[in-house]
Amino acid sequence: MKLTRYGARDGAKIPCVLDADGVARDASSVVGDFGPKSLAEGALDKLRGVDPASLPVADIDGKRLAPPVAQPLNIWCVGLNYSDHAAEAGMEIPPEPILFNKASSTYCGPNDDILYSPKMSKLDWEVELGIVIGKPALNISKDQAMDHIAGFVLINDVSERAWQVERAGQWVKGKSFPNFCPTGPVLVTPDEIGDVNALGMWLDVNGTRMQTGNTGTMIFDAETIVSYMSEFTRLEPGDLICTGTPPGVGMGMKPPVWLKQGDVVTLGIDGLGEQRQTVVDL
Amino acid sequence: MKLTRYGARDGAKIPCVLDADGVARDASSVVGDFGPKSLAEGALDKLRGVDPASLPVADIDGKRLAPPVAQPLNIWCVGLNYSDHAAEAGMEIPPEPILFNKASSTYCGPNDDILYSPKMSKLDWEVELGIVIGKPALNISKDQAMDHIAGFVLINDVSERAWQVERAGQWVKGKSFPNFCPTGPVLVTPDEIGDVNALGMWLDVNGTRMQTGNTGTMIFDAETIVSYMSEFTRLEPGDLICTGTPPGVGMGMKPPVWLKQGDVVTLGIDGLGEQRQTVVDL
Repeated sequence: MKLTRYGARDGAKIPCVLDADGVARDASSVVGDFGPKSLAEGALDKLRGVDPASLPVADIDGKRLAPPVAQPLNIWCVGLNYSDHAAEAGMEIPPEPILFNKASSTYCGPNDDILYSPKMSKLDWEVELGIVIGKPALNISKDQAMDHIAGFVLINDVSERAWQVERAGQWVKGKSFPNFCPTGPVLVTPDEIGDVNALGMWLDVNGTRMQTGNTGTMIFDAETIVSYMSEFTRLEPGDLICTGTPPGVGMGMKPPVWLKQGDVVTLGIDGLGEQRQTVVDL
Repeated sequence: MKLTRYGARDGAKIPCVLDADGVARDASSVVGDFGPKSLAEGALDKLRGVDPASLPVADIDGKRLAPPVAQPLNIWCVGLNYSDHAAEAGMEIPPEPILFNKASSTYCGPNDDILYSPKMSKLDWEVELGIVIGKPALNISKDQAMDHIAGFVLINDVSERAWQVERAGQWVKGKSFPNFCPTGPVLVTPDEIGDVNALGMWLDVNGTRMQTGNTGTMIFDAETIVSYMSEFTRLEPGDLICTGTPPGVGMGMKPPVWLKQGDVVTLGIDGLGEQRQTVVDL
């Protein structure tokens, strides 16, 4: 299944399932909404029993694309998960996944603006594959992991590098500004994505290609990450895990390139759609 | 005001305000519950207009003490915020606050069990002052900070040191196991706490005093922390900030001391009540 949601930031959302022709069908009568609570209550299983063509065409005309799942309780990130990106960042390949978080206020729709604070100076981009958790996961094996995944999404893990690496300590500081986690447009379930470890990905700034990669070069794949994390925490339905970025971030350029007001960032992953953000003053 | 909540983990909670005699009065008719949503909607202002003695005595007999505020969107921690603790951990005094997160599943009541996973080996304690955010905070000054604080709580920032410092990367890995953030029993509003920068604090393991401290020795005080963080993220109503621990953690002992199954941890901060946890097998 491919799921989307439409609606204003502070308003009600229309949860949609795409039919065979890619038309958004209104699934609110079946699941209410897609979010941590409805995922925990089996929203995906309920939807699987319904023919999308039997649902009304969603009234999405002129409506904002929202993240395909409502606000998660946790946004996790895996650092340096592409060997080439670790090299461009001048860091060692990690022996096991590096974990950190993004704040809840980062979560936004795929085409919402990137906000430029007066205190920023090194604003950067990162195209990433996102994992959305479907069932609680604590101490699960790699073989069990896919059963705990609701699906996959496209993410821009927006980062302020000065805050991340020059301001004492942990990376979360440069990963947590409002709208730093555009998510969507679509959540694609594991049975629909095909081989999640062979998806092409790209990111452009003002139409110039900056990142080109493939999930096949991830050091730790999706199932390994979910199993690994479940040793240290209980992953919750709706939790989002950003799995790292391939080479081509601004920090890795010589000289470095940073986003400024007016820049347009577009990005995509095979099967997971595309995003488009404009950098605007806070 | 002093606020508490009672109720089972997965059940409805009774939000209570303590009257002049310390008796819990049921405030559900005024605010519904204490949580991110009701704080954003002005729950504290509504309660200030009500005489606690006019509310019914809460039916709390035999009920579990819950955290005084419902699940926050973010749990933040400030690392190494007491100079003596930085010394015992063998680390430099940070030039500015170090930030990291705890996962949502860590959040629990003040007397809930600490869970011992078979994969743990260096389980440790940290008595801490917690700040609960009352209003959204983005780019606010230190002078404005107290107006954005709903109140203060007692926290045990439970930590698995092997995961925190020996497993590649960021500290969140050792801070995020379920029940690693006992919170409460009470939330005390800024007008009621007195001088929040002069509160005695202590922690015992099996009746032996391990930590003795005072919030007066924090490197960065509550208002500095809230103002500082608001430069990098938007703090949300209900967000919890754990502000660091004084000396006396197990990691700092020579030789180190770790919690094991059956151990009982008790802790307290002046005016914020006491907690009691037992370490049990997962």
